[in-house]
Amino acid sequence: MTHEIAVIPGDGIGQEVTPAAVDVLEAIETVDFDFVEADAGDAVKAETGEALPQETRDIAADADATLFGAAGETAADVILPLREVVGSFANVRPARSYPGLDAVQPDTDIVFIRENTEGVYAGIESEITDGVRTLTRVITEDASEKIAEFGFDYAKQNDYDDVTIAHKANVMRETDGLFLDAASAVGDSRGADYDTALMDALAMHLVMTPEEYDVIICPNLAGDVLSDLAAGLVGGLGLLPSANVGEENALFEPVHGSAPDIAGEGIANPSAMVLSAAMLLDHLGYDEEGDRVRAAVESVLESGPKTPDLGGEAGTEDVTAAIVDEL
Amino acid sequence: MTHEIAVIPGDGIGQEVTPAAVDVLEAIETVDFDFVEADAGDAVKAETGEALPQETRDIAADADATLFGAAGETAADVILPLREVVGSFANVRPARSYPGLDAVQPDTDIVFIRENTEGVYAGIESEITDGVRTLTRVITEDASEKIAEFGFDYAKQNDYDDVTIAHKANVMRETDGLFLDAASAVGDSRGADYDTALMDALAMHLVMTPEEYDVIICPNLAGDVLSDLAAGLVGGLGLLPSANVGEENALFEPVHGSAPDIAGEGIANPSAMVLSAAMLLDHLGYDEEGDRVRAAVESVLESGPKTPDLGGEAGTEDVTAAIVDEL
Ligand SMILES: CC(C)[C@H](C(=O)O)[C@@H](O)C(=O)O
Ligand SMILES: CC(C)[C@H](C(=O)O)[C@@H](O)C(=O)O
Repeated sequence: MTHEIAVIPGDGIGQEVTPAAVDVLEAIETVDFDFVEADAGDAVKAETGEALPQETRDIAADADATLFGAAGETAADVILPLREVVGSFANVRPARSYPGLDAVQPDTDIVFIRENTEGVYAGIESEITDGVRTLTRVITEDASEKIAEFGFDYAKQNDYDDVTIAHKANVMRETDGLFLDAASAVGDSRGADYDTALMDALAMHLVMTPEEYDVIICPNLAGDVLSDLAAGLVGGLGLLPSANVGEENALFEPVHGSAPDIAGEGIANPSAMVLSAAMLLDHLGYDEEGDRVRAAVESVLESGPKTPDLGGEAGTEDVTAAIVDEL
Repeated sequence: MTHEIAVIPGDGIGQEVTPAAVDVLEAIETVDFDFVEADAGDAVKAETGEALPQETRDIAADADATLFGAAGETAADVILPLREVVGSFANVRPARSYPGLDAVQPDTDIVFIRENTEGVYAGIESEITDGVRTLTRVITEDASEKIAEFGFDYAKQNDYDDVTIAHKANVMRETDGLFLDAASAVGDSRGADYDTALMDALAMHLVMTPEEYDVIICPNLAGDVLSDLAAGLVGGLGLLPSANVGEENALFEPVHGSAPDIAGEGIANPSAMVLSAAMLLDHLGYDEEGDRVRAAVESVLESGPKTPDLGGEAGTEDVTAAIVDEL
């Protein structure tokens, strides 16, 4: 069986790290892929006027899964609609530190399960009068329940003990109150052990004692900010993969952006992108292959060539070759 | 001239750390205070049905400044209206690490200037239909301009070089777009040097390289979360004071809450509360006295008795006595 994978490198270092992920997937002999490349981002917008052409949407919609690199100024115009195209409701963001790296908190292993359809991202904004604008934040019971079910399932399947529900229900009483109640009800109905935490206090605790957290279920923007915070704990965005998971389709992307400051130099860290490809393997049912890729990345991070963001001098291609060698 | 100070200890450790701040202020012989105590929080709600009695509002409104400790479950019902009572538009939250403490990032010295009247805190929530709720986030040009002016002034007066404007205008295009434009226009009109940063990326950078930031101007919720994050960098909420500043009145409170887990044990760290009293001194024009209090707290943190949150075994009263001795 051949899996059709849409490949959207995008802008900046997306162009450099996406081929690394494709190389790694091609090196897995037990799985057959058919890669279909498509455009998105600043460059295609400059050319065609559209950051996310209809053709790219169609390719992603028809594929078994999508690999996305990064986009520049147009990032939101690309990634938010792409998440919709694949019907993603859960954004899975593992943040872990690796032996051999100089992390702010070397004992971090947390997976953020971020609600991926609503909150402030529902994005209904208005100009009420000159100088007065509003944004309507939307929280529904259905989406809150769904992300919580996904989160509790994820914790169970991956043998994580601690589930935390993040919220700011002391201020957003009705909306985050609904999120908190719906997510708690899911935990209760399963007899699961879980904690709830105000997102501000949680930000502090994550910095000081990340080892106390496993799986954190978050509203959309809370998940965005807290997962980037955790990237800081483990050594930066160059290490964080993510999966945007829908009922039948999914999109995999590094948490980092297009990094215009280093784009074109061939020194971008491919780890986040390759780890995203490992999540794609899991998603298609190839857990063993996913584990093999993670083990290879980990081994290279521990004792292989390193890109400058990790204090090394290696290039993207050296690191990628080392990962492929380890497979 | 005698300054009338409303003193609202509130709940939990608020009852323990607020007297510490009063002791320190009383030890400053160059300034005369008249302290008027008032109730707020869970305990008074249990008794009277109201977390913030009208009498307390009146006392805070009439005083020259207010010292507030903490509240428990009712925190939002107390602090949000109190901020309104004093007409606070700017929440000033300095986060710095001190020599001698075991901080996650020992080279942190950042002041968050948090907009204190709008954003999601405007708090207009609705149930649209069963299971669907909305919150209307409000951003105005006036409030955005005002907080930016305050932030740029603060940076200049306190000799801070770097000003950063935090936002999430790639998603909240109209509302944070307005905040970003209005705040940037203030910077531009002064010919000031400043950066802008997406709040998610900023969360990562704050964890990894806090030494690169000085003053951060934030929308309300961003300021709430990022300042707590910074508390984690410097050793916890026991160290962070804050000022809620209005045109003519102001309220000073530690960033920490009522800490029910340690309340009543006499081991709460009074530093955040005493440093809040130092900000009160600055506010009334006694900068030299404010500096004296900060120097005393710093000296005790460096080599004096420490409460358990900082790895010591001292109680609140020991630490307070040591601070008073140092004055
Ligand atoms: C580019 C932006 C719209 C996006 C988000 O906020 O979701 C990014 O920050 C992310 O986390 O993937
Ligand atoms: C208690 C709560 C309403 C408050 C806030 O969100 O402002 C607190 O977290 C703070 O930061 O002072």
